[in-house]
Amino acid sequence: MAVYTEVGDEDLAGFVAQYDIGQVTSCKGIAEGVENSNYLLRTERGSYILTLYEKRVKPEDLPFFLGLMDHLAAGGFACPTPVHARDGKALRTLCGRPAAIVTFLDGMWPRQIQPQHCRLLGAAMARMHLAGASFALKRANALGLGGWRPLVDACAPRAGEVRAGLDALIRDEIAFLEPNWPKALPEGVIHADLFQDNVFFLGDKLSGVIDFYFACNDFFAYEIAICLNAWCFERDGDFNATKARLMLQSYRAVRPIQPQEIAALPILSRGAALRFLLTRLYDWLNHPAGAFVKPKDPLEYARKLRFHQAVTGPGAYGIA
Amino acid sequence: MAVYTEVGDEDLAGFVAQYDIGQVTSCKGIAEGVENSNYLLRTERGSYILTLYEKRVKPEDLPFFLGLMDHLAAGGFACPTPVHARDGKALRTLCGRPAAIVTFLDGMWPRQIQPQHCRLLGAAMARMHLAGASFALKRANALGLGGWRPLVDACAPRAGEVRAGLDALIRDEIAFLEPNWPKALPEGVIHADLFQDNVFFLGDKLSGVIDFYFACNDFFAYEIAICLNAWCFERDGDFNATKARLMLQSYRAVRPIQPQEIAALPILSRGAALRFLLTRLYDWLNHPAGAFVKPKDPLEYARKLRFHQAVTGPGAYGIA
Repeated sequence: MAVYTEVGDEDLAGFVAQYDIGQVTSCKGIAEGVENSNYLLRTERGSYILTLYEKRVKPEDLPFFLGLMDHLAAGGFACPTPVHARDGKALRTLCGRPAAIVTFLDGMWPRQIQPQHCRLLGAAMARMHLAGASFALKRANALGLGGWRPLVDACAPRAGEVRAGLDALIRDEIAFLEPNWPKALPEGVIHADLFQDNVFFLGDKLSGVIDFYFACNDFFAYEIAICLNAWCFERDGDFNATKARLMLQSYRAVRPIQPQEIAALPILSRGAALRFLLTRLYDWLNHPAGAFVKPKDPLEYARKLRFHQAVTGPGAYGIA
Repeated sequence: MAVYTEVGDEDLAGFVAQYDIGQVTSCKGIAEGVENSNYLLRTERGSYILTLYEKRVKPEDLPFFLGLMDHLAAGGFACPTPVHARDGKALRTLCGRPAAIVTFLDGMWPRQIQPQHCRLLGAAMARMHLAGASFALKRANALGLGGWRPLVDACAPRAGEVRAGLDALIRDEIAFLEPNWPKALPEGVIHADLFQDNVFFLGDKLSGVIDFYFACNDFFAYEIAICLNAWCFERDGDFNATKARLMLQSYRAVRPIQPQEIAALPILSRGAALRFLLTRLYDWLNHPAGAFVKPKDPLEYARKLRFHQAVTGPGAYGIA
């Protein structure tokens, strides 16, 4: 649940007056997303999302994120588009925070992931990878391989508070991944947080992707690995190979997956599982008492990590 | 912040299919309101609010609340109107909870209350009181005088944890109010929770009132007293007599205030302050550790209560 910043009446009116979108008729905080303050803004002209970027987003990264949305939308990929104010700028300041208005994207994220969702996701992910290839800006993945060791060091001493043996799991895993991580695979702009609440569907179509605030340059196949983790496990922890196969088949029908990418899927999936295990574990151990955002369960990703450690090859994901 | 119930994809589609409002195009949880789960629902036909009634609302009261909104809207008072499904019913069940769809009301609640807001509120409150007079259903005020003694008994033993002397304040106050509370004043349907987040404004107009889930039959002047508490104190605790005067003047221009109502304003204001002091205190003392709704400060209403205890007559509220 979000909305950390309460926007005053005059602040809002003054902010919106800088855009050519008419007068505000409604502005309601949205109880989704945990990183930023999001408002559903309605004006005489239409519906928008107003986002105030809270402390986890670095202001210097915002031109990359907003520029990427502009670029992808211009390339025909469905995503929110930053609304540019009369002075041409999409990134402004509101209540002392960086803020932007983006277009409203129809659709709903799926509460229960069906195989059909995975099939649609695969093709959309590949189209996004192709559309992003011509984007000029670059952003390193702050939560890629190089970002995991500091999290391991920060979390391992107290990981045993969450589950006995969790400290050994993460220390052993980073020790394996660092020397074995792929050095060269096809890369480009990835979303890097393509979880179900960031992908909207409408009827039997995928209507678009939101929340590009982790986007960065990294291996395309690492994004696939994140999605294997995020979309292809059932709530009981079982891996659903049918969903994985549908996702990979529809992806490769749009952007061919190279043999070295396929071969790397098991280790990339281990890395992706560790990444979300570590950030969830860090939040779990460090969220302030009485905080109003419920931390996500890190152990979900410990279980996923163990699954990937045990696979014997990419065939486990329904691809060869 | 609300949204306690997560609505599944098929549950939502099946629910909305019972109405003649087209297909759902978007459904987002709203981070406002603390009693129920509220979603901003968009369909091919327009925008609506979908509410799932959580445990604080008694299902048997819902026909009163929804019927009142229908009645007030039919009488020209701006408020959300329940959308009736094809079978004529406005009250249904979703995810095991009572649920209803109401029309979307434009406007925003004021983050900073200005005198102008109080002036507009007074007239709207009076119009609501007049429009509600012909409503056939009745509902006793569960949080009226008779409901306070149980809260005092539940809270007083631990009130000292919040502030030394708070137990004596509430015990002495209920002991004063019970024998002195007015027996007969003009009465009818009141909103009973007319706080700033339930009153929407658009430009220089009051666009409507929401959240009728405390509405009941009680003294009209008790509602005025609630609003003196909720709208006429500054954040530093000072009472703003200008705001009170504007509110009362505009109210009486629509519905005359009787001399006995004016005379009762000091005691009614004490009662209203005690009511919100008690419910906030109860929530403060009883909210579960780690709950995701931040309890409101009960001491704000202890200070307001002391103000009303010290007034020498209704002149303190700018009326005579």
